[in-house]
Amino acid sequence: LGWSSRVPVSTVTTRGRAKRLLGRLRNQPVLVQAKLPRLSLQEPGLPGLGLPRLGLPGLGLPGLGLPERPAVQLLPKAARRQVLNQHHRLREQPPAIREPALVTRIAIVGYGNLGRGVETVADQHDDIDVVGVFTRRPVADVKTQGTAVLPIADLGAWADEIDVAVLTAGSATDLPELGPAVLRLVNTVDSFDTHARIPQYFATMDAVGAESGHLAMVSAGWDPGLFSMNRVLFDAVLPVGDTITFWGPGVSQGHSNAVRRIKGVADAVQYTIPKPEAVANARTGAALSTRDKHSRVCYVVLAAGADPEQVQSAIVNMPNYFADYDTTVHFVSAAELDRGHRQMPHGGLVVHRAETSAGTHHVLDFQAELTANPEFTAAVLIACARAVHRAASERSGAVTMIDLPLAYYSPRSDADLRATFW
Amino acid sequence: LGWSSRVPVSTVTTRGRAKRLLGRLRNQPVLVQAKLPRLSLQEPGLPGLGLPRLGLPGLGLPGLGLPERPAVQLLPKAARRQVLNQHHRLREQPPAIREPALVTRIAIVGYGNLGRGVETVADQHDDIDVVGVFTRRPVADVKTQGTAVLPIADLGAWADEIDVAVLTAGSATDLPELGPAVLRLVNTVDSFDTHARIPQYFATMDAVGAESGHLAMVSAGWDPGLFSMNRVLFDAVLPVGDTITFWGPGVSQGHSNAVRRIKGVADAVQYTIPKPEAVANARTGAALSTRDKHSRVCYVVLAAGADPEQVQSAIVNMPNYFADYDTTVHFVSAAELDRGHRQMPHGGLVVHRAETSAGTHHVLDFQAELTANPEFTAAVLIACARAVHRAASERSGAVTMIDLPLAYYSPRSDADLRATFW
Repeated sequence: LGWSSRVPVSTVTTRGRAKRLLGRLRNQPVLVQAKLPRLSLQEPGLPGLGLPRLGLPGLGLPGLGLPERPAVQLLPKAARRQVLNQHHRLREQPPAIREPALVTRIAIVGYGNLGRGVETVADQHDDIDVVGVFTRRPVADVKTQGTAVLPIADLGAWADEIDVAVLTAGSATDLPELGPAVLRLVNTVDSFDTHARIPQYFATMDAVGAESGHLAMVSAGWDPGLFSMNRVLFDAVLPVGDTITFWGPGVSQGHSNAVRRIKGVADAVQYTIPKPEAVANARTGAALSTRDKHSRVCYVVLAAGADPEQVQSAIVNMPNYFADYDTTVHFVSAAELDRGHRQMPHGGLVVHRAETSAGTHHVLDFQAELTANPEFTAAVLIACARAVHRAASERSGAVTMIDLPLAYYSPRSDADLRATFW
Repeated sequence: LGWSSRVPVSTVTTRGRAKRLLGRLRNQPVLVQAKLPRLSLQEPGLPGLGLPRLGLPGLGLPGLGLPERPAVQLLPKAARRQVLNQHHRLREQPPAIREPALVTRIAIVGYGNLGRGVETVADQHDDIDVVGVFTRRPVADVKTQGTAVLPIADLGAWADEIDVAVLTAGSATDLPELGPAVLRLVNTVDSFDTHARIPQYFATMDAVGAESGHLAMVSAGWDPGLFSMNRVLFDAVLPVGDTITFWGPGVSQGHSNAVRRIKGVADAVQYTIPKPEAVANARTGAALSTRDKHSRVCYVVLAAGADPEQVQSAIVNMPNYFADYDTTVHFVSAAELDRGHRQMPHGGLVVHRAETSAGTHHVLDFQAELTANPEFTAAVLIACARAVHRAASERSGAVTMIDLPLAYYSPRSDADLRATFW
């Protein structure tokens, strides 16, 4: 596993960083002359990674045998740090304020929309290195944007090279098994979002983490996540009041799937839309029913021979999902659905209206407008991975986003944060 | 200092709590019969507080001599806890989730608008007890809403009864002296808001706290405070973007005072108003100049014989304060100013627009609409006092609001927070 000068830059995990650094150097010709030789990624003679860690257990599942020898090369840590520190020296911030950031090496576990989002967004963070994508699918079937793909059974062999595993699997069936299995090997971050089962999942992860000595941040993202943080903060500061959460405008996967399961529906996308008058009423303190808060709009492709009226009636009267809402159904062609409704915008709003004394009221709100839900959730998970890495030297078990100081989510030094944002 | 059955309920520090409790009991006649005897605040024979702590140093200032014997009686801790726990048992939340909260005993240091706000708002928090108002003025000159008034020189004598001192003095000249002096005796929270001097003030408080073993939270409130927290969070999650802070609509004391200093001005109130089109532009990513962001509106009472045109010109051309803004001046009578402009509304908005990949942008914002600026700032300081009390067993020195976990600001248990808000 020694460092090889033949590994092209585009396949090593610092790909994005090297690209940015070189781009930056190109804009700074004076520095190119002075610094480039020290930064060359092709320089031979850099220290290797030592012996491969064969023989370590995989995920602890029986019958998997020894992990395969990892198929890709890692840029050695010393060289990564050299590049990173060089990069920091080129920044605008005065070096007296900016301390060298702690580099967090993450593994992406799973590779759907969210996993792809983590890979994309990690490129924006100088202190985040993606070690690889770990998958349960055949490695050859997973096409990433450049990150190495490894079988999940190898995760144990790579544990020493990973600070935090970002779990991008689904909450319904995958995370309850995957979460504890990975947490036995490394620290984790996940976006478990089945609200009713969060206490139980938290308890499981807390016990596994306490035993393995690793730290898990569960149920991170925007809701649960940033929105929950604001609900906690609003209640702590202004306890005599009401908090109302609106979701959307955005695509609800759960409701889209519910429509797709109806007989006669070939495909569908459902938008959840907060009613503007309801948002205004939340700010003035008026009472709101479920029907008042959101409307639902469905774009539906009919199956051949299906009766539109029957399908429409099945949708708007569906209990739990639609019966309590004002629902509009639009029938469109498959081509129209593909053309206009494949993005995944989302967002929402947490409104808190409260009194501090008779007649003295205050309104706080936190709002998110997201063009792409998975990429934004990925951005939150990356900040959480950084916080978990920093906190893991202090504690193990499970936490949520309110259990770590906000400063831990930032790569900046405390002095920099105070000078820049306070 | 023993507990005396002659002390009327309305003069002890649990006044508000006892009042609420009795009100609640009055609405629950069955419980009155069963519980009231155990809760009677006039019951004799409760344990006393022991000997008064005479002879302890005051603020460490020479020449102040022994502190006066405190003029009021405290409800003994055991009785306070009994009342509090009883109160908790009457709550709606299932007792399995709600653990008894840690009671935080605060001192209010200083008694202007902010100090009065802390006294008012503390009544809303079951876990906050106000020990007293400590003042540099003659005690007889300070009229509170019921809280005991004590000379600040006595603070040392009361230190064992105080978990956190909430410093409500001004940043310009008072806090730089008062903060370190109080921090030598007890933990502190303050709202030091001279942005440029925060690093220096932080360093002083950090050193004093480290030496005395106490914890100081500096520069808390909404800006600096909640707004700063959001700026940190937005940058940590979405580093490739711009954060813009708008202030208002609201009264700026600094700008009002600047107008009052102009020759020919008898009195004035200045409103800072974000321009709606600027807020919209911040969300779409357009560039904004200082003049684009805010407008300023002044209500001015002229002194006898003053020339309105001269005053108007002096205002709108004042460098730093008004020259870079669109400023409107309205001349009003003293009576009109009193009638319409003595409230202190304020608020603002932090907008962050950022990309996670080419063409994929997100907008996050945090907004506050405050009817009464001092009461809201007081509400934030109370949550901070709770967090400091909890963190003080773990660390000393200085922190800002981003250095403690959000959960510390809430009186609820971790399990309650997860079940209620996550």
